[in-house]
Amino acid sequence: MRSQTSIRPVQIEKIVTAAPGSLIYKSGETTVLCTASYTTELPGWLAGHREHRGWVTAEYNMLPSSTFPRKKRSQDSRSIEIQRLVGRSLRAAVNTGRLNQISVFCDCEVIKADGGTRTAAINGASIALKSTLDSLQKQGLLTESPFVGHVAAVSVGILRGQPVLDLDYEMDSQADVDLNVVFDHALNFVEIQGTGERITFSQVQLQAMLDLARAGAQEILKIQNSFTG
Amino acid sequence: MRSQTSIRPVQIEKIVTAAPGSLIYKSGETTVLCTASYTTELPGWLAGHREHRGWVTAEYNMLPSSTFPRKKRSQDSRSIEIQRLVGRSLRAAVNTGRLNQISVFCDCEVIKADGGTRTAAINGASIALKSTLDSLQKQGLLTESPFVGHVAAVSVGILRGQPVLDLDYEMDSQADVDLNVVFDHALNFVEIQGTGERITFSQVQLQAMLDLARAGAQEILKIQNSFTG
Amino acid sequence: MRSQTSIRPVQIEKIVTAAPGSLIYKSGETTVLCTASYTTELPGWLAGHREHRGWVTAEYNMLPSSTFPRKKRSQDSRSIEIQRLVGRSLRAAVNTGRLNQISVFCDCEVIKADGGTRTAAINGASIALKSTLDSLQKQGLLTESPFVGHVAAVSVGILRGQPVLDLDYEMDSQADVDLNVVFDHALNFVEIQGTGERITFSQVQLQAMLDLARAGAQEILKIQNSFTG
Amino acid sequence: MRSQTSIRPVQIEKIVTAAPGSLIYKSGETTVLCTASYTTELPGWLAGHREHRGWVTAEYNMLPSSTFPRKKRSQDSRSIEIQRLVGRSLRAAVNTGRLNQISVFCDCEVIKADGGTRTAAINGASIALKSTLDSLQKQGLLTESPFVGHVAAVSVGILRGQPVLDLDYEMDSQADVDLNVVFDHALNFVEIQGTGERITFSQVQLQAMLDLARAGAQEILKIQNSFTG
Amino acid sequence: MRSQTSIRPVQIEKIVTAAPGSLIYKSGETTVLCTASYTTELPGWLAGHREHRGWVTAEYNMLPSSTFPRKKRSQDSRSIEIQRLVGRSLRAAVNTGRLNQISVFCDCEVIKADGGTRTAAINGASIALKSTLDSLQKQGLLTESPFVGHVAAVSVGILRGQPVLDLDYEMDSQADVDLNVVFDHALNFVEIQGTGERITFSQVQLQAMLDLARAGAQEILKIQNSFTG
Amino acid sequence: MRSQTSIRPVQIEKIVTAAPGSLIYKSGETTVLCTASYTTELPGWLAGHREHRGWVTAEYNMLPSSTFPRKKRSQDSRSIEIQRLVGRSLRAAVNTGRLNQISVFCDCEVIKADGGTRTAAINGASIALKSTLDSLQKQGLLTESPFVGHVAAVSVGILRGQPVLDLDYEMDSQADVDLNVVFDHALNFVEIQGTGERITFSQVQLQAMLDLARAGAQEILKIQNSFTG
Repeated sequence: MRSQTSIRPVQIEKIVTAAPGSLIYKSGETTVLCTASYTTELPGWLAGHREHRGWVTAEYNMLPSSTFPRKKRSQDSRSIEIQRLVGRSLRAAVNTGRLNQISVFCDCEVIKADGGTRTAAINGASIALKSTLDSLQKQGLLTESPFVGHVAAVSVGILRGQPVLDLDYEMDSQADVDLNVVFDHALNFVEIQGTGERITFSQVQLQAMLDLARAGAQEILKIQNSFTG
Repeated sequence: MRSQTSIRPVQIEKIVTAAPGSLIYKSGETTVLCTASYTTELPGWLAGHREHRGWVTAEYNMLPSSTFPRKKRSQDSRSIEIQRLVGRSLRAAVNTGRLNQISVFCDCEVIKADGGTRTAAINGASIALKSTLDSLQKQGLLTESPFVGHVAAVSVGILRGQPVLDLDYEMDSQADVDLNVVFDHALNFVEIQGTGERITFSQVQLQAMLDLARAGAQEILKIQNSFTG
Repeated sequence: MRSQTSIRPVQIEKIVTAAPGSLIYKSGETTVLCTASYTTELPGWLAGHREHRGWVTAEYNMLPSSTFPRKKRSQDSRSIEIQRLVGRSLRAAVNTGRLNQISVFCDCEVIKADGGTRTAAINGASIALKSTLDSLQKQGLLTESPFVGHVAAVSVGILRGQPVLDLDYEMDSQADVDLNVVFDHALNFVEIQGTGERITFSQVQLQAMLDLARAGAQEILKIQNSFTG
Repeated sequence: MRSQTSIRPVQIEKIVTAAPGSLIYKSGETTVLCTASYTTELPGWLAGHREHRGWVTAEYNMLPSSTFPRKKRSQDSRSIEIQRLVGRSLRAAVNTGRLNQISVFCDCEVIKADGGTRTAAINGASIALKSTLDSLQKQGLLTESPFVGHVAAVSVGILRGQPVLDLDYEMDSQADVDLNVVFDHALNFVEIQGTGERITFSQVQLQAMLDLARAGAQEILKIQNSFTG
Repeated sequence: MRSQTSIRPVQIEKIVTAAPGSLIYKSGETTVLCTASYTTELPGWLAGHREHRGWVTAEYNMLPSSTFPRKKRSQDSRSIEIQRLVGRSLRAAVNTGRLNQISVFCDCEVIKADGGTRTAAINGASIALKSTLDSLQKQGLLTESPFVGHVAAVSVGILRGQPVLDLDYEMDSQADVDLNVVFDHALNFVEIQGTGERITFSQVQLQAMLDLARAGAQEILKIQNSFTG
Repeated sequence: MRSQTSIRPVQIEKIVTAAPGSLIYKSGETTVLCTASYTTELPGWLAGHREHRGWVTAEYNMLPSSTFPRKKRSQDSRSIEIQRLVGRSLRAAVNTGRLNQISVFCDCEVIKADGGTRTAAINGASIALKSTLDSLQKQGLLTESPFVGHVAAVSVGILRGQPVLDLDYEMDSQADVDLNVVFDHALNFVEIQGTGERITFSQVQLQAMLDLARAGAQEILKIQNSFTG
């Protein structure tokens, strides 16, 4: 069994889609296709407002064959909640004021689900997003880069009383507490989402989980920064 | 301006609906109708499983006239995310293993929205839930009480660099960080949901907000426990 | 048992929402939250037509906890039919030609259903509508009042051969004929909707029911006119 | 111009569908395809209840080419309201207690709309319904006829101060009051639905309209009874 | 039994709807109401493009009473596939470049289904379409006729090893191969849709079926051209 | 420019999902993730019928980032039509009578669309289907293999008067005729779907296209048969 205080092995593979940034992000068995498309159509509520602003939005989708038994092809409330989290996280990687009226859509398609799909989606989409922003700069659609730095997400939990990092499906289904944390490039918090449905948790346990999470995020940021897709 | 380290004044009024537990919970101007109905139809995934288990679920709905301009009558992704949070929180107030095949539906209808509607929904629904469980015990549908203790929710944020408690709409729209925390009766964590979309936040800031939140929750638990509806 | 030729006791309580006119209307156990919001967005078919015209529309919704067993949160064909009736009735209380391009939305949320929810909705919404129109006049958005006079609605039926007024749920479920009548301030007819699904009814029976209805409406108009919310 | 106190000319043509009773009912230019299909699947709420009971239900649909401009193919709230009226009316033509667990679906497809489509639908569907019940008796699926007698529907209105019978589209769009009345075979009331959106109406005007309606219904019943399809 | 190398008898009857071209097309027992309405609202993707272009679109709908047991009133994937075929076929009858910004909607309502509803829909709608285009020319909305010539559709199949033409429901349900072919006025191919779900078929069998189809289409074109509605 | 009488280069890569058979099929730039999941829940219409029968069904979905501009995530009528074609085609590769009450779902997710996505979906899904059937046999869920042989699909068209094979997006958008042909392992026809919306086509042209298609299918069958995933 892998050590419970390190992240699962990460693999990143390029794949060609119609989006400038696109890759397959693997964390252990969990596999997510992450792409970043762009459009010059702003969401309605933003259109015509500030001259140089843009937006980053995300969609999260589990492909039917990502789970056994096969998941029906329809968006459930869990997916909606996750894609809102992914979108907020990615906007912390970007200065939207420099997006020059461009909307970027980060699509995260889960190819295989083995725990931690939302964190894999954020980590992979952050890289795809950067590739697309780089490409937009090369094309001259952006003058200065709106990219601030990668965001890195990890899950931590409490399993049989012990804090554990980056839970796979089996661990996740036994864990008492489930905490997803998203960090910015400087290891400050972007998002904290913790749930203790089975048991509640103390301040001390929270701190232990957050420390583990920060260590995991540091490893992920290193991988993200060294990727030259 | 009210002190930023205390909660807004809370008022709880009984109202008669067809549900055993029902009340109007006010926190400042924010007003939520909280009710707890029950049925002996279990959700499909639970039906026929364990003999004595039951379930608690929640729905959160903003009434059209709760906001100006008027909100259209359709469920959006924000509502779905909130009702999942309310449901998970309320299940921490209950030992579902003692629910004896009963499903309790906690409906939270926002009558007026002035910030903190999700925390008001949790605080009020926890009381409505207890009333309904008490009523089920009196009717003999439950033999021992499945109620474990109230859950209390508060919002905290960072506003102009300072941690603030229980933000109203105006404060909320200016805050840089938005953190909702749900505590159990022993002041352990049930849920932590923090978002730093505008700025990210440090470990020190998180700790300051959590301390403020715990103090606020203590006040709310006192009010909940003293309610004799 | 209450006399079958008088209306149930009416209670009207103010409640604060984001709409200028809002109140809780009770007729016996039946309880409806009635609000009147406004917007300057006209419905598409009216936009750009006559300079000073506006519109009044209504929505009718039974909250899940208004009935036992709990009603699922979805609009059914009965609700659609009722909200069309409420809307037509309220437009008879108003000179839409003086609404100055304003749309008023009257939302009727049934908090407890014990027979006669549609008539309670009309009676309460008529008052909420007037409050909102008064408020629009004070704000200077309307120059002359478009309000013509209250509309009052009552249900009558035939129960064990006798005409009865303002049926509660138990009476309603036993009645052979169900007739809802809406009157204007001068006691002329605005709407008549009568159904004899179980038995058909004669001209004489119709007349007896209409006479009873008119007497009931007269009482309601008195209550509406004396309300100073 | 036709006399305003007689009904428009009625034509009934047989047409072959997969339903035992099916015909095209014309009232002036208004043309409706009326069919009555049957099934032994009862609606859920009735299944398993009384041994010999059955049900009659109706659907009302305006075909896209029935109006100019062409109507989009989607059910609106007006259609839902009308099909509920048609269903209730037809059930007054039948003793559902003798339907022997059979559900009859009366489908009314408006081929051309020129005012009075809902009354034409009721009048034609009553005949189609009888044909299907006769056919069920011949097949031995029903032992005694559940048919009680035809129901006849007419519209009346007030146009330039005068009561008028069976309004076509042009008259209808100018009328101040619109009243639809459904009678049973003995000329008692099954349904009364009157709306005075433009002006309200008095007891005297109501009586004049009801008298006119009864005379019209008498003519229609004669036509229905003499039809030997 | 009719000869398997000739088409079923065709009957065309005029019927009045609000569309200029409208008729009932019968092929054996199969009966379809075909109408062609028009509007000057172009589909979004075409609006504002070429000055003189227009569009032809089709909708295909099986009325509930067209089958036994009764078909529920909801569009299924089969209907969508068929109406796409009908639309493409009809556009081959027209020079859309001469449609002068007019959209024509051909609605095909199946009144009785006995096999070959999609081919009957195409054959009838081609005639309705021509009538409407003629009417538009008379009204001066079109200067030159955009009509190129009728399109004719037939089904062929392989039944017990033999090619057969224009299958009714019973033959269709026993056939091994089902091929629908649409021809233009010069007997060139517009559409070929062949499916061998039960058995696959050879080049020789395909040729035999296509020859039979062409002969059938020739008969239909003759009928279409001689119709003077 | 590649020769217009040969297929584009095909590449097949394995990928791990939760389905036993899963791979990425590339034809030129067109890239489709094809998987075959299984369940023992039969579709309703089949449940309880024949003891040993099963079913094969397909879903076809274009991922948002498969096109530029990005495609919105919603199923359109084109997708529905395609997935029906894919399903019918795959059932020709299988003896459903030997599927022993198992349903196989073949999911085709288009990762990059450059023409010919439906044929790539069929070709890849045929391989994924075989892998899953092999796996079911190894697990003992099937006793004899229901696999009959691969099905191979190709598109052909007429471009500037010449028949061309396996059109990419650019060729496809210029072609006058678009024909998709599916062959079984013995090169008999499973499906023929040809559309000549821009021009109609003659018997001679059809024959030339079918010959080209058969040659292409032969190449694809060779690739499918030599794949040992």
